[in-house]
Amino acid sequence: MTDKLTSMDIEIRVRYPEADQMGVLHHSRYWVYFEMGRTELLRAQGVAYRDLEEMNVLFVVAKCSAAFKMPARYDDVLTLTTRITKMGAARIDHAYELRNKDTGMLLCAAETTIACVNRDGEIIPIPDSIKE
Amino acid sequence: MTDKLTSMDIEIRVRYPEADQMGVLHHSRYWVYFEMGRTELLRAQGVAYRDLEEMNVLFVVAKCSAAFKMPARYDDVLTLTTRITKMGAARIDHAYELRNKDTGMLLCAAETTIACVNRDGEIIPIPDSIKE
Amino acid sequence: MTDKLTSMDIEIRVRYPEADQMGVLHHSRYWVYFEMGRTELLRAQGVAYRDLEEMNVLFVVAKCSAAFKMPARYDDVLTLTTRITKMGAARIDHAYELRNKDTGMLLCAAETTIACVNRDGEIIPIPDSIKE
Amino acid sequence: MTDKLTSMDIEIRVRYPEADQMGVLHHSRYWVYFEMGRTELLRAQGVAYRDLEEMNVLFVVAKCSAAFKMPARYDDVLTLTTRITKMGAARIDHAYELRNKDTGMLLCAAETTIACVNRDGEIIPIPDSIKE
Repeated sequence: MTDKLTSMDIEIRVRYPEADQMGVLHHSRYWVYFEMGRTELLRAQGVAYRDLEEMNVLFVVAKCSAAFKMPARYDDVLTLTTRITKMGAARIDHAYELRNKDTGMLLCAAETTIACVNRDGEIIPIPDSIKE
Repeated sequence: MTDKLTSMDIEIRVRYPEADQMGVLHHSRYWVYFEMGRTELLRAQGVAYRDLEEMNVLFVVAKCSAAFKMPARYDDVLTLTTRITKMGAARIDHAYELRNKDTGMLLCAAETTIACVNRDGEIIPIPDSIKE
Repeated sequence: MTDKLTSMDIEIRVRYPEADQMGVLHHSRYWVYFEMGRTELLRAQGVAYRDLEEMNVLFVVAKCSAAFKMPARYDDVLTLTTRITKMGAARIDHAYELRNKDTGMLLCAAETTIACVNRDGEIIPIPDSIKE
Repeated sequence: MTDKLTSMDIEIRVRYPEADQMGVLHHSRYWVYFEMGRTELLRAQGVAYRDLEEMNVLFVVAKCSAAFKMPARYDDVLTLTTRITKMGAARIDHAYELRNKDTGMLLCAAETTIACVNRDGEIIPIPDSIKE
């Protein structure tokens, strides 16, 4: 595990049915992208979220907020920066910046708090292997 | 269980993000509607699909086909007719007709074959309680 | 237009593919429900959002936040309360409470700020016909 | 334009909310992947579908069929092969094979017929620049 890695960028191309009839990425889809950002950050740290679930360690979104500044459009290539901003015993806060890759314009800034739970939905401590 | 009920109608209003930037219901969403049709037909027969899954009886789509004739648009109210066309030992065939409720125009005709499996994905006989 | 109507309830049944492999409504789908709440509140006030778009009056989500308290599951029937909390020249704030209809338990509390724009994305005043 | 290119492969990783509570890719999502396959095949031929829409040339799905053979799971990397099987004056038929990249197992075989229309939904000839 790369013990200092707390931020990473991924690229996402907007899919056709993710844009609505205004021609812009629907606000509900951003959360799918942010989850991809968390997953890839975790993978870069050496952990597959899929394996965590198999070990009965699940992460659920407890809180979220976003500010939408500029629209993303179908077929745009976006750059998502995902950053860990706070690590608690059973919670992790992330911040996200989604930009248009070509223009560099900031489209959306967002934050989430995820909680570590078991399959019964009970809060459990984040395993040490992840916290490191 | 109503032992002769093999067809039923439900109404569905097209949601905003289900329409794409052409302003029409994306073809991928129709399958979500057809699944709702199957679920409500089953419920009308006295069975909640949720309860089946808890009894380790799952239905998976094995085959499907559709002909798209006219577009559905955001906020349109649609009438979906779901009909059982064939019942096998471990498979059920359904046919679907999706119409615009206001105009009665046929938008899509489709068919699916669903297979009965357990949680390990093995084909199992459809329980008698459903076949009746 | 019913000039005092600033809150309303709608019922939504969780669809199969809206639940993820944890068996719970994915956090991205809540925003689709909240948008349905806004649409039905507007319709109860005598305005179809579809007609607004045809008049070049669009509403886009500028900010949002949510706290997820309890999971919703496939086939659960939910009650969504949508309430206008603030009306500006070109912005409307809504608050949402999503409850399990059977138990009454609060699943999610959320807020959005929507901005009124034209088809070019420029901020425009909310038409008087809506503000009344 | 590469005038002989009638087939191509893309890789797609299954996203978390694309799997349902059975833990498998929901059958409705395959159509989103197949559309991505068509788009990337077109792009490899030198045409961005986005630009076609701006020139009032749209492709809509007229018919589709699929056979689902094996499930795809969350975080699986899939290989999608998209192939043009027939080219008419105003229609294009594609065939798709979706495989698990690691195992090479065939998960789904499918076909679509897309029709070329203008923004009013009228059938129009496929532009020569694409047919070549």
